[in-house]
Amino acid sequence: MSEDAPAVGIVMGSDSDWPVMEEAAKALEVFGIGYEADVVSAHRMPNEMISYGSEAAGRGLKALIAGAGGAAHLPGMLAAVTPLPVIGVPVPLRHLDGMDSLLSIVQMPAGVPVATVAVGAARNAGLLAVRMLAAHDPDLRTRMSEFQDELRSQAQEKGARLRR
Amino acid sequence: MSEDAPAVGIVMGSDSDWPVMEEAAKALEVFGIGYEADVVSAHRMPNEMISYGSEAAGRGLKALIAGAGGAAHLPGMLAAVTPLPVIGVPVPLRHLDGMDSLLSIVQMPAGVPVATVAVGAARNAGLLAVRMLAAHDPDLRTRMSEFQDELRSQAQEKGARLRR
Amino acid sequence: MSEDAPAVGIVMGSDSDWPVMEEAAKALEVFGIGYEADVVSAHRMPNEMISYGSEAAGRGLKALIAGAGGAAHLPGMLAAVTPLPVIGVPVPLRHLDGMDSLLSIVQMPAGVPVATVAVGAARNAGLLAVRMLAAHDPDLRTRMSEFQDELRSQAQEKGARLRR
Amino acid sequence: MSEDAPAVGIVMGSDSDWPVMEEAAKALEVFGIGYEADVVSAHRMPNEMISYGSEAAGRGLKALIAGAGGAAHLPGMLAAVTPLPVIGVPVPLRHLDGMDSLLSIVQMPAGVPVATVAVGAARNAGLLAVRMLAAHDPDLRTRMSEFQDELRSQAQEKGARLRR
Amino acid sequence: MSEDAPAVGIVMGSDSDWPVMEEAAKALEVFGIGYEADVVSAHRMPNEMISYGSEAAGRGLKALIAGAGGAAHLPGMLAAVTPLPVIGVPVPLRHLDGMDSLLSIVQMPAGVPVATVAVGAARNAGLLAVRMLAAHDPDLRTRMSEFQDELRSQAQEKGARLRR
Amino acid sequence: MSEDAPAVGIVMGSDSDWPVMEEAAKALEVFGIGYEADVVSAHRMPNEMISYGSEAAGRGLKALIAGAGGAAHLPGMLAAVTPLPVIGVPVPLRHLDGMDSLLSIVQMPAGVPVATVAVGAARNAGLLAVRMLAAHDPDLRTRMSEFQDELRSQAQEKGARLRR
Amino acid sequence: MSEDAPAVGIVMGSDSDWPVMEEAAKALEVFGIGYEADVVSAHRMPNEMISYGSEAAGRGLKALIAGAGGAAHLPGMLAAVTPLPVIGVPVPLRHLDGMDSLLSIVQMPAGVPVATVAVGAARNAGLLAVRMLAAHDPDLRTRMSEFQDELRSQAQEKGARLRR
Amino acid sequence: MSEDAPAVGIVMGSDSDWPVMEEAAKALEVFGIGYEADVVSAHRMPNEMISYGSEAAGRGLKALIAGAGGAAHLPGMLAAVTPLPVIGVPVPLRHLDGMDSLLSIVQMPAGVPVATVAVGAARNAGLLAVRMLAAHDPDLRTRMSEFQDELRSQAQEKGARLRR
Repeated sequence: MSEDAPAVGIVMGSDSDWPVMEEAAKALEVFGIGYEADVVSAHRMPNEMISYGSEAAGRGLKALIAGAGGAAHLPGMLAAVTPLPVIGVPVPLRHLDGMDSLLSIVQMPAGVPVATVAVGAARNAGLLAVRMLAAHDPDLRTRMSEFQDELRSQAQEKGARLRR
Repeated sequence: MSEDAPAVGIVMGSDSDWPVMEEAAKALEVFGIGYEADVVSAHRMPNEMISYGSEAAGRGLKALIAGAGGAAHLPGMLAAVTPLPVIGVPVPLRHLDGMDSLLSIVQMPAGVPVATVAVGAARNAGLLAVRMLAAHDPDLRTRMSEFQDELRSQAQEKGARLRR
Repeated sequence: MSEDAPAVGIVMGSDSDWPVMEEAAKALEVFGIGYEADVVSAHRMPNEMISYGSEAAGRGLKALIAGAGGAAHLPGMLAAVTPLPVIGVPVPLRHLDGMDSLLSIVQMPAGVPVATVAVGAARNAGLLAVRMLAAHDPDLRTRMSEFQDELRSQAQEKGARLRR
Repeated sequence: MSEDAPAVGIVMGSDSDWPVMEEAAKALEVFGIGYEADVVSAHRMPNEMISYGSEAAGRGLKALIAGAGGAAHLPGMLAAVTPLPVIGVPVPLRHLDGMDSLLSIVQMPAGVPVATVAVGAARNAGLLAVRMLAAHDPDLRTRMSEFQDELRSQAQEKGARLRR
Repeated sequence: MSEDAPAVGIVMGSDSDWPVMEEAAKALEVFGIGYEADVVSAHRMPNEMISYGSEAAGRGLKALIAGAGGAAHLPGMLAAVTPLPVIGVPVPLRHLDGMDSLLSIVQMPAGVPVATVAVGAARNAGLLAVRMLAAHDPDLRTRMSEFQDELRSQAQEKGARLRR
Repeated sequence: MSEDAPAVGIVMGSDSDWPVMEEAAKALEVFGIGYEADVVSAHRMPNEMISYGSEAAGRGLKALIAGAGGAAHLPGMLAAVTPLPVIGVPVPLRHLDGMDSLLSIVQMPAGVPVATVAVGAARNAGLLAVRMLAAHDPDLRTRMSEFQDELRSQAQEKGARLRR
Repeated sequence: MSEDAPAVGIVMGSDSDWPVMEEAAKALEVFGIGYEADVVSAHRMPNEMISYGSEAAGRGLKALIAGAGGAAHLPGMLAAVTPLPVIGVPVPLRHLDGMDSLLSIVQMPAGVPVATVAVGAARNAGLLAVRMLAAHDPDLRTRMSEFQDELRSQAQEKGARLRR
Repeated sequence: MSEDAPAVGIVMGSDSDWPVMEEAAKALEVFGIGYEADVVSAHRMPNEMISYGSEAAGRGLKALIAGAGGAAHLPGMLAAVTPLPVIGVPVPLRHLDGMDSLLSIVQMPAGVPVATVAVGAARNAGLLAVRMLAAHDPDLRTRMSEFQDELRSQAQEKGARLRR
């Protein structure tokens, strides 16, 4: 868990999702962004889920990352009770390979958007939160640009090895 | 609206779903079962939705029928806050032909079931509620059997016309 | 097998489905609800299947749970011959990951509903049967509410462990 | 209806399927094969459906053609109660474009096959029945070969027009 | 390979499909029906494929069973050059789980039907061929009915074991 | 076009997408957020697309909204060349109902996220951009909360009308 | 029909596909490339199809464009009998929106490739043929580059109109 | 890597795709066609990707083969900046079995085609490039025909073994 005051809340329906969702936390840590992680289940603790979402902005969070699988309602329900941007991570379950999770998260009705990333793409959810923060923080934006440069360098080195 | 004390609550995210969901009400009326119909949106009025579900059993309702489309969270969220059986109707929206609605409703996690019917099948949702009630009401069960006999007679007549 | 007089019939097309369907039985046992389990194949013993369904209500059953895979006809055919509510469990087979089972069960024509749960979700089928019974049994409804409280407590503990 | 003693039974769940299924009858008429057409609904008249299938071979029928949509159980249930070959026609309904009908018909379990044709392809179902009969009737086989020659000639003429 | 004069030709695009297609041969053997098995690839030996199909009826075959995967053209192409009924078996390949094979086989254009069975269901293809032959052979039809009785007995025994 | 200095860039591959994407602009106007709209085609003007993305942050934009259909590459390619958050709108084309557009946008590889909304949901893309800005702007966040209150009031009124 | 000696053969299973496939011809005409168009049905005139493909290279054609729908076998079968590159156009039929056509064309087995374009994308098939020819014809390559410049100019003008 | 001057460029987004894409290189080697292989990532090194594509024709390449997975943008983006034919290989990733990769590559908009092969079919991509070159090289075309003869011989031998 980050030492800094949390700017991002990472939530999931069960701690069994943590091995997937941990990648979001790691991405935030790379950029030194404080976060909190919690189990907030839409279906098993709906009142706490409503409370968590309703209070998130007031507690200083700037974005929420919510992972869920199957009939994945957590990201959309949080988006319904917070004015913050909510990033949804479709967690693949045992059947249907995450297609149910993806559609349950991305196909939100008009008025209540969820910023959806790829199936299982918690790391990208973290990086998307960084971009949201970086849009208002020139230093952070520079670091995101440097991160993208680093991705390029790594890809170039892979190409050099392949060409040898 | 039925004159009898409501045994079934029919809810949907918007009154634009009423032309679909009305068929559930009509099925209940055929069997003389009281119902109430309301707009209860998971995404637009989450607190009222939680209240509606939490109070449904106490108000004497025996089953809930919830219609929703796209990232359809209403049936599952109601199931999370009521011990009553919740019947989910996947409402087809403009894109994806109801497949997103179906998966968002049926693929509920362990612990919180939703009784899902076919895409757009509000009439069957009503009939399923009648069956639930009829399991504890011999007269109603007789009438359901008669209804099934009636379906058979109609099908037989269609066959007779086709054979002519 | 439960000692109590059976209130729920759990049927499947082959005993190879028992490892999946057993979870429905376990859920009923948690609530002390009597059940019977049997192999009733729509395609291999159609007459016995018709008899089973036709006699279910008369024998005192209040709900049927039917698991089937592929071109899964058992739940729908039972629903055609009983006025009881039938809960369908799409069993995933070797190919197509249960999508064929799901559509074969849920997409029933007007007049004959099947209460469909998620692919492989036999436990939820059991819990749905409990909810149907609980709607007419205040004690059972209280126990279902307590069960839901228990789900919440477990989820909260998982959150506490994650926050540590 | 054909004047000849029927060799093929064409059945469907409702007379609303007749505009689709009629093409099977027309294909049989082209080859002078007697047929009967009837409404036999798996879900609305299950006992009659079982009787129809059980008696089909004894009445001299050589093949059955069954059309059904959605959770399409008619072809598979007939195959369960007759030793005759059953040809299944997936009828497309309002939603899901016949994919549910197709999977419900084709994905039959080991032991009970259904000869499935394309979505809505009742004409091909009729032609498939002709081929089955023609395998044991040299004259009919010759006529099927001539029919195929005719298809070729028509296609060649279309090509000639296009090349002009 | 059967000793009897072959009534059914079993063909596939590669001998790597034999472990799947062998089940068709076994089903025919159970009923004492002679068959031949061969590699006939639509894409690798198109002329031989055309010859095989064109000559099949003349050589006394009564039905063809063709297995193919991916862009599965063998069943449909054979159907184009023979008046015999062609049974198509969608063989699942490494990706897409047989859905591509299924659609490539079943969705034939008007005029040229293929009798399609479930993904990987070679055993059912064999049984479907038996039914086609049995329609013209009372002894064989009796044996198919006995086979179906046997399926029922086995299912009943499974039920008895489960009820114990 | 907004009079304010643009905070959000709305781009699309062709002006034929404007009837869909216009809804993003309208959502921004409701909140008084300046935007610019342009045609930036990944496939028809790749160099200008790279330039547009590379310069977006330097020109003061805080988020990009990109709509594209079919093999929809614009949102992902922009995300590759800007550190800003990019919101992708899957535009449904004539075939496949937007499923191709959705997968082409949401399934981005690790390192380069796109915040994807529902098929055709340009209005939600606009609202998501507002939420991103509102996370750093208390007044705007208050207005977003009021907007959500307004959604609730409208839904409640619809319910009142339905209950009447 | 082009006056020049044909370099490209455009074939389809029926003249009813011509309204779609005509766009391939128009694209070739823009670049002054001679073509021939013909009806060559894999299923209705298999021998002529084999002949057409076998003779195509000898007649001086440099590429084939084949459009087909449903169980679309024409492109793959032509690729089996010619060493020329074959471009496949999935033609959408009444059901399944071209997904069956696409999979039937693109999922070819190892050894026999088909260059597949988007559902209904005959114009792109024509442009792909131009690119194949242009790789060996500097003048034509220059004209393809100019065509791409023209696409860019048109897109830029659309942007200018939108920005106004 | 081939000793000959490269006629084909094989590129991929990461060296982790090499085990799949290597099959394209091997196919080219069989025909003695020079190639180059490189890592060119659309999302991680967009400017280098644009340069690579823009310069490909000038450097003497006659075709590009591009492999990519998920939201697979590399083939289409290269096609946007080169007049050469681009062959796209959908690489299957961990989820969705390559369906996302396939749709992201094949569903290109009018004006910019990509010659798409089957999911994971890099070998066929190599063979398709050979066919493109062979259309302008009689010797190479002869060798492609011989290669197809060899495929036939191998298939015939498999058949001979099966018939034994």
